[in-house]
Amino acid sequence: MHFSRLALIGCGLIGGSFALGLKKQQCVSTVVGFSASESSMNKALALGVIDTKASSLRQAVEGADLVLVAVPVNVIENCLRDMLDHLSPSALVMDVGSTKAMVAEQAMSIMGERAHQFVPAHPIAGKEQHGVEYASAELFVKHKTILTPMPVNTTQTIALASEVWVGLGSEVLCMSAQEHDQALAGISHLPHFIAFAAVNALNSQAHRDTFWRLAGPGFRDFSRIAASSPAVWRDIFVSNPDELLVQLKAFQNALQDLELALKNKDASADLKDLIEAASLARKTWSHSA
Amino acid sequence: MHFSRLALIGCGLIGGSFALGLKKQQCVSTVVGFSASESSMNKALALGVIDTKASSLRQAVEGADLVLVAVPVNVIENCLRDMLDHLSPSALVMDVGSTKAMVAEQAMSIMGERAHQFVPAHPIAGKEQHGVEYASAELFVKHKTILTPMPVNTTQTIALASEVWVGLGSEVLCMSAQEHDQALAGISHLPHFIAFAAVNALNSQAHRDTFWRLAGPGFRDFSRIAASSPAVWRDIFVSNPDELLVQLKAFQNALQDLELALKNKDASADLKDLIEAASLARKTWSHSA
Repeated sequence: MHFSRLALIGCGLIGGSFALGLKKQQCVSTVVGFSASESSMNKALALGVIDTKASSLRQAVEGADLVLVAVPVNVIENCLRDMLDHLSPSALVMDVGSTKAMVAEQAMSIMGERAHQFVPAHPIAGKEQHGVEYASAELFVKHKTILTPMPVNTTQTIALASEVWVGLGSEVLCMSAQEHDQALAGISHLPHFIAFAAVNALNSQAHRDTFWRLAGPGFRDFSRIAASSPAVWRDIFVSNPDELLVQLKAFQNALQDLELALKNKDASADLKDLIEAASLARKTWSHSA
Repeated sequence: MHFSRLALIGCGLIGGSFALGLKKQQCVSTVVGFSASESSMNKALALGVIDTKASSLRQAVEGADLVLVAVPVNVIENCLRDMLDHLSPSALVMDVGSTKAMVAEQAMSIMGERAHQFVPAHPIAGKEQHGVEYASAELFVKHKTILTPMPVNTTQTIALASEVWVGLGSEVLCMSAQEHDQALAGISHLPHFIAFAAVNALNSQAHRDTFWRLAGPGFRDFSRIAASSPAVWRDIFVSNPDELLVQLKAFQNALQDLELALKNKDASADLKDLIEAASLARKTWSHSA
């Protein structure tokens, strides 16, 4: 596997790590970067993440045999539209968006008979920091990357997409976009939603300074994801609202079970049973993960 | 500061770390351990956490000038009752319970005119693992320990209690039991309550295997505290239900704000504002912590 020209659309943490990883594996000759943010592009160039800056998205993709669209999910649509007439017929295009059903639908609608070149991808890796300055060639190592191939993708295209992520150290899984969005709503979107709410709840109280002064390592880990990028997470929530609301309802039900068990002090065995079920499930996962 | 005999009541993670820390600082000559669990006592002895096993709580405290009651909060009451007639009049007694108002009330009621010997303490440190095999002399280093002195405590007693925790590497803070319980409900008890509910919600769904297979580092940190000890956390919740319910209500309100902003797709600016407030607060804390 070798690409002569990677067009990196969006020079942030994920895109930058992708470029650095391919460079480290010597799988790419040249990386051309384009970003809506001039300062991101300049940082990416200074850090050696990209080799040249493009003056437009179109210029970036011209002659590229690999295109990575590493932008917030709500901007992917515009990027695909912009690049279409300039895209090499043999180029592989992937995104890295955190929701997949909406993106696949947009790709089908915009790219038409060229949609077979686009393989929706989601590397489950990240940091609460964002920006190319945090990019690392090892970001995807031992992390899972989910591909949600579309019916129009050929086996060869899917295999090549898979090879790219395996080359970056990822474990690659394939599933439907619906299955992906449902699972990610539970294990990622809802936890972020909850963490944002938990921090807002503390911060809205008169005693907030005492809270922040006393918070320890348990709270630090629990709330780490609440420091995530507001622009990125607003877009993720809005692009997968139905599945997120299903998971929110399941969580609210589980929370209510605990609340009722707590209020009924005589039924303390129930409270302990509920906690035990959670503790066991979490420990079992730790040991298998 | 030097103690000739520490009576360690409860040979678990916290008690074991306390004993190891004092030994490492050469602040104690002998550690006598007692635990309701014979196997914990044997492990503590084998690991050098305690020097001798006591055959009863009473035997452990006899002749001790320092007593640490490192047992779940709902058992502290019985321990104080058991030791009272055998306690040296000059011994300093501390607990390490995660709630303080109930414990202070129990100590006043049970110990009577000897309650001045008891200083309620709460080291904000721990691991999701429990058991003396995870004990470490460094567990309290750079972590906060809160003392909630009672009106009957003398300045000298409080100063000695403080010196013990400072010697273990802790930053010591004093506040009222009420202030402690309110703050801990927000930064510790509620996050545990939420994490237990979040794990139970995922685990109750038919797709649970996909959830566990795909969950990544964000979920791992968010849910780490859900692996905590069911016995310990059931007791903490039940010993501080009023403050926990106040914090739960604040969280549910904040969650509802996010839910309403999500459902009102046209009002996406509001959703982003709510996320931004949380992200900023969490980042500000990271930088100051």
